[in-house]
Amino acid sequence: VSNFADRLLNAIDEKHSFLVAGIDPSIEQLPRCLLKKANNFSSSEREAAGFALSLFGRDLIDAVKEYVVGVKIQMAYFEVFGYHGIKAFEEVARYARQAGLLVIADGKRGDIGSTALAYAQAYLHQESDIDALTVNPYLGSDSVQPFIDRCSENKGVFILVKTSNKSSQEFQDLICMNRPLYQHVGEAVCRWSKGLKGEHGYSSVGAVVGATFPKEMENLRTLMPQVIFLVPGFGAQGGSADDVIGAFDTCGYGAIVNSSRGIMYAYINGPYTEDDYQQAQKEAAETACRQINLALEKAERLPLSFGKS
Amino acid sequence: VSNFADRLLNAIDEKHSFLVAGIDPSIEQLPRCLLKKANNFSSSEREAAGFALSLFGRDLIDAVKEYVVGVKIQMAYFEVFGYHGIKAFEEVARYARQAGLLVIADGKRGDIGSTALAYAQAYLHQESDIDALTVNPYLGSDSVQPFIDRCSENKGVFILVKTSNKSSQEFQDLICMNRPLYQHVGEAVCRWSKGLKGEHGYSSVGAVVGATFPKEMENLRTLMPQVIFLVPGFGAQGGSADDVIGAFDTCGYGAIVNSSRGIMYAYINGPYTEDDYQQAQKEAAETACRQINLALEKAERLPLSFGKS
Repeated sequence: VSNFADRLLNAIDEKHSFLVAGIDPSIEQLPRCLLKKANNFSSSEREAAGFALSLFGRDLIDAVKEYVVGVKIQMAYFEVFGYHGIKAFEEVARYARQAGLLVIADGKRGDIGSTALAYAQAYLHQESDIDALTVNPYLGSDSVQPFIDRCSENKGVFILVKTSNKSSQEFQDLICMNRPLYQHVGEAVCRWSKGLKGEHGYSSVGAVVGATFPKEMENLRTLMPQVIFLVPGFGAQGGSADDVIGAFDTCGYGAIVNSSRGIMYAYINGPYTEDDYQQAQKEAAETACRQINLALEKAERLPLSFGKS
Repeated sequence: VSNFADRLLNAIDEKHSFLVAGIDPSIEQLPRCLLKKANNFSSSEREAAGFALSLFGRDLIDAVKEYVVGVKIQMAYFEVFGYHGIKAFEEVARYARQAGLLVIADGKRGDIGSTALAYAQAYLHQESDIDALTVNPYLGSDSVQPFIDRCSENKGVFILVKTSNKSSQEFQDLICMNRPLYQHVGEAVCRWSKGLKGEHGYSSVGAVVGATFPKEMENLRTLMPQVIFLVPGFGAQGGSADDVIGAFDTCGYGAIVNSSRGIMYAYINGPYTEDDYQQAQKEAAETACRQINLALEKAERLPLSFGKS
């Protein structure tokens, strides 16, 4: 199987999970034992920071890999440390791939066609460890096309439609010709997604739709029947398992749900100490996975292949 | 002087130039003599590519620094080569700064608040060699705020308003409440720019407005009197010197004009051979600088401080 959407849906059936673990590590929040180890192995502060991000990301993958179909690596947190950070990003992406997880690079890139081509080459070239990239649509079709082109070569994209932050209403909800801007973007994503459907009926061109706006999410689900939603905003950002149900179709497919801080930082303010950060992350991932499946079961949308949750 | 807008306007007066040299190097287009040198000094293909980008960028800076106020480094072309590319990006940014040029990182970043904070930390921290970053506004105010916050600490931002590519009309020109989306974004940029004005009356919060849409540019100039325009699309993308005049106020300030391919690749299809790439770039920069000044003089908008062009 090479189509990205098919690979994603197969992983869901295999793991009985819709969960994606977000890797957005902020150096100040990392366990002190891990920072100490990183300092011992490094000759500069930035090198140590890169080492710590890499180690933390790889440990997180080991902790949660049973319960997630993939990871979403937030590039900003790695870019903070320049090329040391990017080296860590590459190590984490490779490690996730070797663990059999799908790898989403959350870079929200977007630029004019010639530059978008360079971004597509950077993250979605054939040998890359990255399976899919998040893309910002503000510049329109010619800026999105180079990423779409990679979707016929087994890669995927998730295009920002309605984001999870409060200010997303400011421009995304502006009414243009009787419907909000995000709906125009959703219609464009539908057009872009055509011709890239896999055997399961979903396209490798997906959309980012925040869990914090359940009503808008339901409308978009109807508007974009063949588009997989990457749903951020679950957990620390305020979205509950019930809030994400609208992202799924009646058979229980069509969405993956990201949790970053809720899993990654489970060792802060929880029953575990920092030294047991992996155990804390593992339990948080298991809980999040089960919460989503239970909410789907309650809504009678759990896929048949899952059996009982 | 610490305010970014003041530093930019002072550089314009000092150099008698509104030109910014874009550094968007695509490895396939680089002079063969330079690629050969890079290969000799490197142990892997990606390392050689990073070395070549760094060398090309630094040579370009040496060639054009008399005629430009700054450089705009397009991050995508460096990200193509992973951490080797980012290392080159950092070297080029440092070199430009040491040459007394303003450094704009063209990354078009944009994400929810907590992540935007990480991007601001990555590119606009106090010790960074980067003076300003381009930012995508699709996620609204809370995603832009962390960058704006850096503008009171002598950094700058340029927010995408109306981009130079053909598809920019697709979403940016959608009519919402009787005016196009880009105008709503322009109004938001006006709000964000308040309180960050320097002594010359311009704010360190700027806007990206493409040279390929002169009419829209003139409307935006009126709408955003205190906002500096970063104008891409001049030269290879089709914008002429006359097309950019609308970006300037009646005193001849308020805009900087970027040329990437027209200067960077001046050795391709020109009178010079690849071996003389720096001479070709130097003449192209001088010509572009003069064309803009002449067009301003013709329009009676050349700043008084320039004397005769």
